[in-house]
Amino acid sequence: MSKKQLKLGAFFMLPGHHVAAWRYPTVKAEHIYNFEFVKQQALIAERGKFDMVFLADGPTASYRSSAFEQQSWAFFEPLTLLSSLAAVTTKIGLVGTVSTTYNEPYNVARKFASLDHISGGRAAWNVVTSAGIEAANNFGFKEELLHAERYERAEEFVDVAKKLWDSWEDDAIVFDKENAQFVDKAKVHQIDHEGKWLSVTGPLNIARPVQGHPVVVQAGSSEAGKELAAQTAEVIFTAWQTLEDAQAFYSDVKSRLAKYGRHPDELKIMPGVFPIVGKTIEEAEAKRQKLLDLVPESLGVSRLSQQLGVDLSGYPIDGPLPELPDITEVNGVKSRFQLVKDLADREQLTIRQLYQRIAGARGHREIIGTPEQIADQLQEWFEQGAADGFNVMPPTFPDGLNDFVELVIPELQKRGIFRTEYEGSTLREHLGLARPANQFATKSLV
Amino acid sequence: MSKKQLKLGAFFMLPGHHVAAWRYPTVKAEHIYNFEFVKQQALIAERGKFDMVFLADGPTASYRSSAFEQQSWAFFEPLTLLSSLAAVTTKIGLVGTVSTTYNEPYNVARKFASLDHISGGRAAWNVVTSAGIEAANNFGFKEELLHAERYERAEEFVDVAKKLWDSWEDDAIVFDKENAQFVDKAKVHQIDHEGKWLSVTGPLNIARPVQGHPVVVQAGSSEAGKELAAQTAEVIFTAWQTLEDAQAFYSDVKSRLAKYGRHPDELKIMPGVFPIVGKTIEEAEAKRQKLLDLVPESLGVSRLSQQLGVDLSGYPIDGPLPELPDITEVNGVKSRFQLVKDLADREQLTIRQLYQRIAGARGHREIIGTPEQIADQLQEWFEQGAADGFNVMPPTFPDGLNDFVELVIPELQKRGIFRTEYEGSTLREHLGLARPANQFATKSLV
Repeated sequence: MSKKQLKLGAFFMLPGHHVAAWRYPTVKAEHIYNFEFVKQQALIAERGKFDMVFLADGPTASYRSSAFEQQSWAFFEPLTLLSSLAAVTTKIGLVGTVSTTYNEPYNVARKFASLDHISGGRAAWNVVTSAGIEAANNFGFKEELLHAERYERAEEFVDVAKKLWDSWEDDAIVFDKENAQFVDKAKVHQIDHEGKWLSVTGPLNIARPVQGHPVVVQAGSSEAGKELAAQTAEVIFTAWQTLEDAQAFYSDVKSRLAKYGRHPDELKIMPGVFPIVGKTIEEAEAKRQKLLDLVPESLGVSRLSQQLGVDLSGYPIDGPLPELPDITEVNGVKSRFQLVKDLADREQLTIRQLYQRIAGARGHREIIGTPEQIADQLQEWFEQGAADGFNVMPPTFPDGLNDFVELVIPELQKRGIFRTEYEGSTLREHLGLARPANQFATKSLV
Repeated sequence: MSKKQLKLGAFFMLPGHHVAAWRYPTVKAEHIYNFEFVKQQALIAERGKFDMVFLADGPTASYRSSAFEQQSWAFFEPLTLLSSLAAVTTKIGLVGTVSTTYNEPYNVARKFASLDHISGGRAAWNVVTSAGIEAANNFGFKEELLHAERYERAEEFVDVAKKLWDSWEDDAIVFDKENAQFVDKAKVHQIDHEGKWLSVTGPLNIARPVQGHPVVVQAGSSEAGKELAAQTAEVIFTAWQTLEDAQAFYSDVKSRLAKYGRHPDELKIMPGVFPIVGKTIEEAEAKRQKLLDLVPESLGVSRLSQQLGVDLSGYPIDGPLPELPDITEVNGVKSRFQLVKDLADREQLTIRQLYQRIAGARGHREIIGTPEQIADQLQEWFEQGAADGFNVMPPTFPDGLNDFVELVIPELQKRGIFRTEYEGSTLREHLGLARPANQFATKSLV
């Protein structure tokens, strides 16, 4: 294939990304906590030649949300689920979200290394910092860390994880039966990390991952998030509503890489897209309306309040947003706050109109239409410097995923911008990312 | 089946429990970090109708051991590995070791709940406290906690995990599409735990596990370990050399349950056994000798030093043990120290003789002989109040496991003391353990 190829993630959020997905007619109670069902979805995604399955995460049940009862709570823990999927798939990448705020780097580096060995080099870690007091309270904290502190810890945490992955050189295991030498100690290294947030001696207790390092993904788009991504991430998952904003973000982030000695191709930018596919535009619009009709008002308002970090339950639903705080006062997901605020300002939306716009995609871009129209919209962003690929967020499972695989992917393949077969076997190979050198390698100058 | 049935764990330590297993002729370099190979072993164990696969763990590479180079270091992380095995097996239980000293209960409870859902009720957690400064140094600590502090935290940690598993009642998810109610909030509970070591609000972000609680296993046999087991454990994995010692331990622990309102049958005591099986006793002895011949002196002395927590490298190898410290000064695995010391005193062994006795089984009981002789030894302990079953530690994989499944299990089945088919589908059902009631259940009095 000569044309530049786009990258696709299959963002699994069961039973669907739409906030009312669980009420959709084809979603069944027996799909909930059903590993066989998840496995079937992973096999569909692999049949579609997706680069990866992506799992979001947060260490809380959002129990204090006023719409707790109306939302589906049916998440497996990402690392256990991806490990099971590793055993029943062969090619697709496996991206798990894990918080740097509520974990220890030795445990995290080790689990991703283990998943990378189990899957033959298909593991990736989506680094998040887990905003919110409810999460903090599950881990012994009365207050949460400040946004800046969380990102400072995250930066150090990823640095430690990379050191731990490098603590075994690739050829450390010699397996010399004759001389009773299993491992060459000169090729296994203590990392002796002593930092502001973390102190870890090492080495890790597992050999270097198949990919050298599992792929590092980042999902924040705040100033701190962009800087962390430019420094450490290989994939960035982000949310944009307009081509112009996406282009601005794309060139901003890509231009930051040079100062860390990195080439722009070493970071793939993949905005989320929420596709509603129909054989005709009317069919697609009808699907969208059917989903919106299933959103109770209170759930819509609650979801919007959550995205903004502001309680909107007391305001008239068909009126405008109240005055919002300045972004400097936001300690949650700053980038999402800004995006939703901008959307409301730009289109002068009421609270109801606004929640309807984010009920599906949670601030990500909705693309609606025939397979050709969906492909047009993806291709435009891909070819106009707004995206290296997309994280696809099906409204419902299995229908939404199936539609994308059966209808949209063949159209992308026909246009020569998406693979028809996996070319490699590791996620790095799918994404066109080099295998990192080992920072402790004793023979790096030979 | 009318006879009382023994329980069997398949203790996976690849490429084998014997310290020199990796040098054994049938163990290949390509078995190392090879998930397909591990999967084949799990399928062999399931064919043998084992109750469970058991994985030990410690969060360190034991890099400071003088014999680091001579030992195999080829461990996957337990929770990721068991999750992959869950996807390719259907009946066998999955027991993972996780430390309470270097983890947070929210993360641990959640991962085991997730594994329990993925596997359809086959998860178990082996609770350990992770002795050793090398582990402490991987988690930001300059000093390790004292033995008593580790156990105090462990007790509270297990208590919190059980609360978290109970934070969702079994029927919390109502999936009422008509009324837009996914979950009944009255059946989901904050746990509001505030203790000496831990503070966790909850609820967990995953529904109650299939088994109510994953099975809780305990591996320590010290005074603190016995008390923790009597209070919280459902399986205890222990190490004894003689029938008398095992009987004394068995009746001691079983008698402690009453004070916690528990019946003796609610805790299964399963000593480790290291079987070397031959078609004749000579063949079995020859296998044992072949393995011992593969142990370098320095590795044997190092392994023995590690078991005792005393550096023996300066002492004559064919002389007696030096004077050992009093057990009150031991901060590592107290019970193992005592066992090895007793063995040396009882049989007046030299350092070399002693390391040869523990090189395979690390203090567990070696049983050597024909399938009939092995079965006799298991049956004796089982029927004479020393064990409810055994954790089987094959010297090598695949040979040692295969021998046990092909030769010993049919003999146990012939005697009517081991199942020929799985009767249930969850690990609790295999072990004959009741599904625990929910401590927060709102309708418990109905």
